[in-house]
Amino acid sequence: MPNAVLLAHGPLRPRLAAALTDFVYRSGGRIVSHEQYVDQEDARYYTRLEWETEAPRERIEADLRAGIGEPFDLRWTLRSSDHRPRIGVFVSKLPHCLYEILARVRSGEWRAEVPLIVGNHPDLEPVARTFGIEFLLTPVDGSNKRAQEERQVAALRERGVELVVLARYMQVLSDGFVAAYPDAIVNIHHAFLPSFPGAKPYHAARRRGVKMIGATSHYVTAELDAGPIIEQDVIRVGHRHSVEELVRLGRDLEKIVLARAVRLHLERRVVVHDGRTVVFD
Amino acid sequence: MPNAVLLAHGPLRPRLAAALTDFVYRSGGRIVSHEQYVDQEDARYYTRLEWETEAPRERIEADLRAGIGEPFDLRWTLRSSDHRPRIGVFVSKLPHCLYEILARVRSGEWRAEVPLIVGNHPDLEPVARTFGIEFLLTPVDGSNKRAQEERQVAALRERGVELVVLARYMQVLSDGFVAAYPDAIVNIHHAFLPSFPGAKPYHAARRRGVKMIGATSHYVTAELDAGPIIEQDVIRVGHRHSVEELVRLGRDLEKIVLARAVRLHLERRVVVHDGRTVVFD
Amino acid sequence: MPNAVLLAHGPLRPRLAAALTDFVYRSGGRIVSHEQYVDQEDARYYTRLEWETEAPRERIEADLRAGIGEPFDLRWTLRSSDHRPRIGVFVSKLPHCLYEILARVRSGEWRAEVPLIVGNHPDLEPVARTFGIEFLLTPVDGSNKRAQEERQVAALRERGVELVVLARYMQVLSDGFVAAYPDAIVNIHHAFLPSFPGAKPYHAARRRGVKMIGATSHYVTAELDAGPIIEQDVIRVGHRHSVEELVRLGRDLEKIVLARAVRLHLERRVVVHDGRTVVFD
Amino acid sequence: MPNAVLLAHGPLRPRLAAALTDFVYRSGGRIVSHEQYVDQEDARYYTRLEWETEAPRERIEADLRAGIGEPFDLRWTLRSSDHRPRIGVFVSKLPHCLYEILARVRSGEWRAEVPLIVGNHPDLEPVARTFGIEFLLTPVDGSNKRAQEERQVAALRERGVELVVLARYMQVLSDGFVAAYPDAIVNIHHAFLPSFPGAKPYHAARRRGVKMIGATSHYVTAELDAGPIIEQDVIRVGHRHSVEELVRLGRDLEKIVLARAVRLHLERRVVVHDGRTVVFD
Repeated sequence: MPNAVLLAHGPLRPRLAAALTDFVYRSGGRIVSHEQYVDQEDARYYTRLEWETEAPRERIEADLRAGIGEPFDLRWTLRSSDHRPRIGVFVSKLPHCLYEILARVRSGEWRAEVPLIVGNHPDLEPVARTFGIEFLLTPVDGSNKRAQEERQVAALRERGVELVVLARYMQVLSDGFVAAYPDAIVNIHHAFLPSFPGAKPYHAARRRGVKMIGATSHYVTAELDAGPIIEQDVIRVGHRHSVEELVRLGRDLEKIVLARAVRLHLERRVVVHDGRTVVFD
Repeated sequence: MPNAVLLAHGPLRPRLAAALTDFVYRSGGRIVSHEQYVDQEDARYYTRLEWETEAPRERIEADLRAGIGEPFDLRWTLRSSDHRPRIGVFVSKLPHCLYEILARVRSGEWRAEVPLIVGNHPDLEPVARTFGIEFLLTPVDGSNKRAQEERQVAALRERGVELVVLARYMQVLSDGFVAAYPDAIVNIHHAFLPSFPGAKPYHAARRRGVKMIGATSHYVTAELDAGPIIEQDVIRVGHRHSVEELVRLGRDLEKIVLARAVRLHLERRVVVHDGRTVVFD
Repeated sequence: MPNAVLLAHGPLRPRLAAALTDFVYRSGGRIVSHEQYVDQEDARYYTRLEWETEAPRERIEADLRAGIGEPFDLRWTLRSSDHRPRIGVFVSKLPHCLYEILARVRSGEWRAEVPLIVGNHPDLEPVARTFGIEFLLTPVDGSNKRAQEERQVAALRERGVELVVLARYMQVLSDGFVAAYPDAIVNIHHAFLPSFPGAKPYHAARRRGVKMIGATSHYVTAELDAGPIIEQDVIRVGHRHSVEELVRLGRDLEKIVLARAVRLHLERRVVVHDGRTVVFD
Repeated sequence: MPNAVLLAHGPLRPRLAAALTDFVYRSGGRIVSHEQYVDQEDARYYTRLEWETEAPRERIEADLRAGIGEPFDLRWTLRSSDHRPRIGVFVSKLPHCLYEILARVRSGEWRAEVPLIVGNHPDLEPVARTFGIEFLLTPVDGSNKRAQEERQVAALRERGVELVVLARYMQVLSDGFVAAYPDAIVNIHHAFLPSFPGAKPYHAARRRGVKMIGATSHYVTAELDAGPIIEQDVIRVGHRHSVEELVRLGRDLEKIVLARAVRLHLERRVVVHDGRTVVFD
């Protein structure tokens, strides 16, 4: 039997945690993990609760809604641990993040599928072919962006895609696209945000003479490079590193940071609230 | 005998490196270390050369100037390894960076002296007293900044101070003060610049939801928090860390990053050019 | 009013967590933080619970024992958050860890006192004098170790010392001493244990050609450098670093790692069980 | 024109560095990079020198041998920067390091080819097929090791393989195999050596309660996990991480550390001497 995974947050109330664990025990479940976080400043409770259960998901949902969700004013989602999300990967010309994702999916490291790769350039079509995955070419220019985005969203919907991963996709998505996948588009930015947002961050890092460069994976929102941060990491650099070398060092960082963020999302470990994330890891 | 330490940079020219090492050999010296860096983009050569010699410093200087400095258009400084720079430490209310500096000087870890601590608040006078060091109180308000800075610079000059360290000193120095100590005022900023310049960076980091916080030590220039970066480091944080906890975690980072930067400066390992540093470490 | 801080562990039992939080609510307390960890492999529950309360500690203790400790077979300790432990610091010749500890205590960063510094060499007596702290000189040779340890333990007991910190103290403590302070002697070893236990780890690291060096803070047990690890960290090094430079780089690591471990101990964040630690941070 | 890349080491002699740069200038070359390291303890000089040249490699080699190699007692190798080494990858059942290598080769990140994948289990044959690379299955049991190794070495030689990469290959190579590829077999060990050599290091790390786990890439020598270390890295872990989670976290570390080491080898940046490496990066 798969486990049930609950991700929830709401106003801090006495006995909320006990109500949740009691809910599991009463339904004959066995708790596998129960992570909690209380934001004392906002008086807000966050939790990720995973338990073994033989109850059907519909009954759990109904009981949760009536018994806890509504009385405690909780926002929550429930998933089975055997759910297998479908990912749409967006790319431009750089292959390292794409290979990283496909290797993890293909080797079974991630419980997920990639039914579609979308590119605004044809460069990575051969990678899609190597892995036997459909490639949708949607070149974007000044005039056709809206039309291409409509094609993209339609293709994603048709294939049941739940999560969009921008794997060094060098186009800004319109608000309309972003609204179609709220908290479900994960991007990798090649800088330690909020440092160096926008284009050519490695050039900017070199010019500023920073001693570390970073990468940031975040949910995409309407404002460029300002969405809730899921994961970041950095690597030490110095004056000896040319822009080309920063690009090379950054590649490894980008793909690992993106992969960590995607895993956290796939395993339902990220709650977004008020422009920030709570990550249960 | 102390060693000679040359720090130099200039346009890249063929045989410049060989000219420097030949200079040492011809004068009977023995090279202890010879670090070099060529910025291929700017065609610029940087070096730190340390050698054992019995020649008097004046003769070395004269020979260097005539034989290499002028023909190769080099900017250079020469120090004896037994030189003992005097540091003026500026503080406000937070003691951790001050203790860090005094411990390293007092234990002999650094070849340096601290003849004077300057504070715009009296809070750290007791620390100065513990270590038996003079404390100059210069409270700054809207109207007396220029006058207080004049007192500060006069006191520093009187005591032969070569290096000013801002150890979480919460006042912005005027351009006049900065001009009095070019490339010789080291500050610690409690953020990973260029992220979160200015006031209250830990509050800003918490609000933005970053997954790492940092500290940056840099030379002070006329523009706030924009001077050449000497050293940076970061530490992993998460949603669980309140601002108070970021402050606590940041303290350790700040004092270590500042101490590394001051050591690099004291050992003549930092060259400043074009708003950035070349660090020979 | 100070908070109550409970540190506890015991066999995993259903409703144990709820019993603890109910205990707090029933007595009119307000939970400030409640960290939990379940070792699924060993079916063991660990927790750190901190709450605001006006109840006297004796009543809390009695109620806890009767209501939870015994029925749930819990091992637990209770402290007030205003408790101010007394630390005995042991040193040999190197001052960096000693300064680190004294700066944190003196500046109020740690809620603790240092009534006594014990040295097997007189070198650091001046540091004790700077800070106005008693220094007990107990030179140890082949024949007097037992006698000196008896003097040390007697002096610690007399001054109400609860925690012994070995701040680069280069003597191995006998089993008798260790038994007098179970899980209350914190050491810093200058290597990334279990790599390079014993003497001269930086020499060994250089010889082996490792690319990082580390430091490990652990509780002292009868077996040398094999006690439960509280905290570790590393720093990147390379072939260019001589043993002397490893020593220099290691100093910063040692003092920070030791300070983190002592803080965790002082704030009652470390549970020791089965040769390992559970750290609530 | 490709560059010439010289990797050399020998006893420290006056004017050796100048002799090398003069050699380049005299032959009309332009130095692109010149990295040097002097081991003062051993009085040994190491260098990596890369220069643009139109001279044929044979003439450079002859001139180097006569003019510098022999007079200065240097051990050296010379490569063209357009050399494209062939890599034989050895695997067992875990795919992450194999995917990492193939992605970097296929995307052109590395100037190298992989003509052959060798497995002692058939599990990863499908990965070889995805990338269109030959897979040689050589199951090893108690009796056939010598015979299988002979098949392996013969297959490597036939395909012109210069570098063997053990990508989580779970068999110990015999001394005979190791001797066939001196300083040309790169292994990844899933621990921070010298901690936890041999089998099941993640289990050992969990048991010891370390606060960081690591990975080590090294050249294979006759003694198990004792060869010269090329690269290491670590990641922070805690009591919450089960062995399974250490395995998951370790995977990312292993593949990145291995990839860094292979790149350093491919770009001729590693010198091995006296059981250690000098890495010019």
